[in-house]
Amino acid sequence: MSPSVEKLIKAFSRLPGIGEKTAGRLTYYLLKTPAEQANQLADAIRELKEKVIFCSVCRNITEQDTCEICRNPRRDRSVICVVEEPSDIQAIEAAGSFRGLYHVLGGRLSPLDGVGPDDLSLELFLQRIEQSDPAISEVIVATNPSVEGDATALYIQRLLADKDVSVSRIACGLPAGGHLEYMDSFTISQALQGRHSL
Amino acid sequence: MSPSVEKLIKAFSRLPGIGEKTAGRLTYYLLKTPAEQANQLADAIRELKEKVIFCSVCRNITEQDTCEICRNPRRDRSVICVVEEPSDIQAIEAAGSFRGLYHVLGGRLSPLDGVGPDDLSLELFLQRIEQSDPAISEVIVATNPSVEGDATALYIQRLLADKDVSVSRIACGLPAGGHLEYMDSFTISQALQGRHSL
Repeated sequence: MSPSVEKLIKAFSRLPGIGEKTAGRLTYYLLKTPAEQANQLADAIRELKEKVIFCSVCRNITEQDTCEICRNPRRDRSVICVVEEPSDIQAIEAAGSFRGLYHVLGGRLSPLDGVGPDDLSLELFLQRIEQSDPAISEVIVATNPSVEGDATALYIQRLLADKDVSVSRIACGLPAGGHLEYMDSFTISQALQGRHSL
Repeated sequence: MSPSVEKLIKAFSRLPGIGEKTAGRLTYYLLKTPAEQANQLADAIRELKEKVIFCSVCRNITEQDTCEICRNPRRDRSVICVVEEPSDIQAIEAAGSFRGLYHVLGGRLSPLDGVGPDDLSLELFLQRIEQSDPAISEVIVATNPSVEGDATALYIQRLLADKDVSVSRIACGLPAGGHLEYMDSFTISQALQGRHSL
């Protein structure tokens, strides 16, 4: 096999969810594609690493510090939604029902993977809570509903215990359109626990 | 969303088998990855388009004309295996039981997709058969066992009808380790038709 082909297959297969077979398919596809389109992809990757930075306030990704959401005067500055990754912000924004600010942790507590509190942007977060004007009245912890996400939520709740701010956690239950029959028992337990009166 | 992020998601989702969700995941992965690794991928893509060319004899991909297989003096020059794509050569070489030369068509006849005989490297192939020294004694058509692949095989057989060369087709049947129970009926029919006495 040609060394350039091998090199690209190797580079592709380092990406998550891309095995050697898929990497090969992508490489052969690029071989057949016009150089222009392939180079667009190469340039987009370079540009991403050159231009995209992290917002100094919330650690969201942005090309201009501070990020669009932090700059937006129409957002509610008294509520912060804490998420694991910038991609979570996209998901919540797409839902369109949250008008507050965000804080990106850059992960979640996961001792098994060696991720401790110092690896997350928690210090920045605490500073932000302390110095915010107007004061933050509510923190919504929207880490994913996993063991690590829940542990991270608990950690944040304790971190803010002596602050004058209410801490809430997004609801865990059946997704819209889900079927009890096909749902895992953990989700069902959570849905039952999280029941509300009608 | 940052324009650079959007641009890369768009570039990724143009690749086959990569939807917008996967493109997003890959992009966010590259955001978190060291610039060095991301740029390795970008460079590998550029290099691929700069260095890799098609062998002037067999249309295999190579960085040096003619390709390694065509150059190899230990290959049997009287047999040509015809395949659709360069990746098919890798698969056959990995099997390790073929010692002849190859010819890459660059696709297969597919009128519905607008691919006719002129879009494949058939003229080059015909020239090769006519001018080869030593003469080609056998052509093995190893296009994929699909309607288009079979049609392409038939077309090649007719193309060579007046030449002194035997044309054969790779066998279609159950793959090793396959189960009759789970096999599609077309494959089973082919396997029955292609039976050989014991």
